Amino acid sequence: MIRLKTQVPGPKSLRILKGLKQKNGGWSVSYPLVFSGKGHGPYCEDIDGNVFLDFASQIASNPLGYNHPGLLDVVKGYSGRHPLKYAGQDFATHEHLEMIESLLSISPFSMDAAFLINSGAEAVENAIKTCMRKRPAAKLGISMAGGWHGRTLGALSLTNSNRIHKMGYMRFPAMRLPFNDNAADELERILRSEASPEEIGFVIIEHVQGEGGYNIARKKMVEDIRRITKKNGIPYISDEVQTGLGRTGKWWSFEHYGIMPDVFCAAKALQVGAVVARKSMFPGESGALSSTWGGGHVLDMALGIKTIGIIQKEKMLRKNKLLGEYMLGRLRDMKNVSNQRGLGLMLAFDVKDASMRDDLVVECARMGLLVLGCGQKSIRLIPPYVTGEDDADRAFDIIERAVMKTSIGGFRHTGAVCEFIHCGRHIA
Amino acid sequence: MIRLKTQVPGPKSLRILKGLKQKNGGWSVSYPLVFSGKGHGPYCEDIDGNVFLDFASQIASNPLGYNHPGLLDVVKGYSGRHPLKYAGQDFATHEHLEMIESLLSISPFSMDAAFLINSGAEAVENAIKTCMRKRPAAKLGISMAGGWHGRTLGALSLTNSNRIHKMGYMRFPAMRLPFNDNAADELERILRSEASPEEIGFVIIEHVQGEGGYNIARKKMVEDIRRITKKNGIPYISDEVQTGLGRTGKWWSFEHYGIMPDVFCAAKALQVGAVVARKSMFPGESGALSSTWGGGHVLDMALGIKTIGIIQKEKMLRKNKLLGEYMLGRLRDMKNVSNQRGLGLMLAFDVKDASMRDDLVVECARMGLLVLGCGQKSIRLIPPYVTGEDDADRAFDIIERAVMKTSIGGFRHTGAVCEFIHCGRHIA
Repeated sequence: MIRLKTQVPGPKSLRILKGLKQKNGGWSVSYPLVFSGKGHGPYCEDIDGNVFLDFASQIASNPLGYNHPGLLDVVKGYSGRHPLKYAGQDFATHEHLEMIESLLSISPFSMDAAFLINSGAEAVENAIKTCMRKRPAAKLGISMAGGWHGRTLGALSLTNSNRIHKMGYMRFPAMRLPFNDNAADELERILRSEASPEEIGFVIIEHVQGEGGYNIARKKMVEDIRRITKKNGIPYISDEVQTGLGRTGKWWSFEHYGIMPDVFCAAKALQVGAVVARKSMFPGESGALSSTWGGGHVLDMALGIKTIGIIQKEKMLRKNKLLGEYMLGRLRDMKNVSNQRGLGLMLAFDVKDASMRDDLVVECARMGLLVLGCGQKSIRLIPPYVTGEDDADRAFDIIERAVMKTSIGGFRHTGAVCEFIHCGRHIA
Repeated sequence: MIRLKTQVPGPKSLRILKGLKQKNGGWSVSYPLVFSGKGHGPYCEDIDGNVFLDFASQIASNPLGYNHPGLLDVVKGYSGRHPLKYAGQDFATHEHLEMIESLLSISPFSMDAAFLINSGAEAVENAIKTCMRKRPAAKLGISMAGGWHGRTLGALSLTNSNRIHKMGYMRFPAMRLPFNDNAADELERILRSEASPEEIGFVIIEHVQGEGGYNIARKKMVEDIRRITKKNGIPYISDEVQTGLGRTGKWWSFEHYGIMPDVFCAAKALQVGAVVARKSMFPGESGALSSTWGGGHVLDMALGIKTIGIIQKEKMLRKNKLLGEYMLGRLRDMKNVSNQRGLGLMLAFDVKDASMRDDLVVECARMGLLVLGCGQKSIRLIPPYVTGEDDADRAFDIIERAVMKTSIGGFRHTGAVCEFIHCGRHIA
């Protein structure tokens, strides 16, 4: 249950947040709490003793909530050893093989190999490398307008959600397709007038765009792009970093579309980064893909394996689908918001502008609910899989109150809070 | 103590290694053991009950050896909670601030900010981004021949140790300087005839090259490059991913040269990736640098903080210097090897060719010593900081026997072993 003992952020949290603002070279936007490690289900406690309902799930990377007993067992099981982090692509552990096998057991049958790595961005980098290796004429990649694939420079070249993420940095040659029914026409135009199939390294797509706005791909667009890429022998990468591991009600979002990618990437909920494909897709030469820590954190791998096991045992794919439908129903009943949308437990809605969106994030946090912005003026809801309908009701009550409050003409949140929490105001 | 109970690899390890060879998309070269988690000091035990002396230290990422009591205490301290991995650039933990403060306490005084990230490659990517942000005219980066900076596409564009790592992948524009006394002349030539200072985003250097061959930079080269970059306002990045955290007998390798970089990168021994610089070097705009998991693994951060504390308390910088000198003395006494070199606990020697080097890695492993190759025909020795002179003696006894054995004309290691362990033979 939500419990607010102090102002938000509380004094202890504020001290840490101030320190991070001063000393973190990448400090930008943060949320008004510092985690204590305490919590249960979708509720987490900060170091000031405040309890929040978490509909952000560590940006979809904490699917089973706080202190799940099954995961606590795993953590305890590793408490008597060090190191937990090996140079796992060279020096093997049994968890590495088990994680790959566990991942393949929930992947399409024809995909019989996986490569583990440190993050979602690194998963995308390695998916790109996997596609490029056998296409020596490839000169560019294709991604979608509004796409988000990570912040390392290869992945970032394919990312197009906000120029702030890219300004001044080097970029690889990449082209964009619109994320709508014109995508196929644009891809055909490129093939006709700009690049041969051999010159295109890959097409990469999120079937539900994450950071870019929780935009859900239409079936026709996906089918058309898949048909054209297949016909031309261009590898199709499904980026499942945010959508994967059951978040949408299926293990992978491409399953909603009846298509099969050549390669897909996972991370976040999986606890490690991964590239999954046919073994024959991967580079044949030794040393073409590797990483010191890739496939090396035995505790993270063990937690990822157990997460898959718990999702299976507790039939969470179906649960996520049903709760997603319930939440979408509540979203559709909301006033003063628009473009309500959702696939499983990836839901979002729009408000009138970015400023109101930022106010809404702040006001929800002050009432004990953590949500994230995305796109231009959207709020995304990413509850943990252990969320119940009563928790969802509680969240919607807060959102409705916050929407009402922030919809009043001229409203802007006040106080020093915007110095330390998610708030568009201090963005240059 | 070394203890070999089975053939190497043993039957249990072999089963895992065979599985990984089949299912790991990045499987390339591995070493003949699967870790059990047991071990003490520089000795580790595999799942077959064999005990190896580890002079590879998880590619320099396990500086305090196996089951150090101080680190075990940290692991135990986190055994009652989950998650351990937060979306730490947005959702804060106190470990994030403490890790930055701990890192800054062992960094030059003028460097007052750090950015934490998932890997050494990602640290380099973010160092590049940090340098580029305020240099809008920058079109290329400069690295050194033989340099190694990671495998994500930005870092990989600066990496030049073996074409197998890059073949077919996209690259950013980058130029090279020779890693010798001609470097300054070449940099001046580039500035005179190829690019203005504003067009050069940065110069990146390892003062002791890692993967490229444990080549130790000469003082004059470093001083000259630093002088020219400073005069032209070109940011100088020190890549301390392998050399950092006391490995060379100082916290950072640039301290051996009396120079100050603008930015440096750390990872491996630190347990997380990091970029360290003046706060004013980092991008000012919110959202310019971030990452879901960067600064988010509370256990890895706590282990990194404790590692720094143990190195300080046990005066390991001095110990590493002294043991390094002792080991270099033993190296210099060795027959049938050449180009013995070392700085602290980064030591290396050459043998007659790559084939003998690969044989040597295999034969050492079969006698219970783990070593790594590097460069064209070098063996590197990277013992944990908890290694004693007696352990070093034991290692050199094995190396000497292995060198004697593999020096015999026509020697090649035999058996199925080369299918599953580090061995150049199956490289295309």
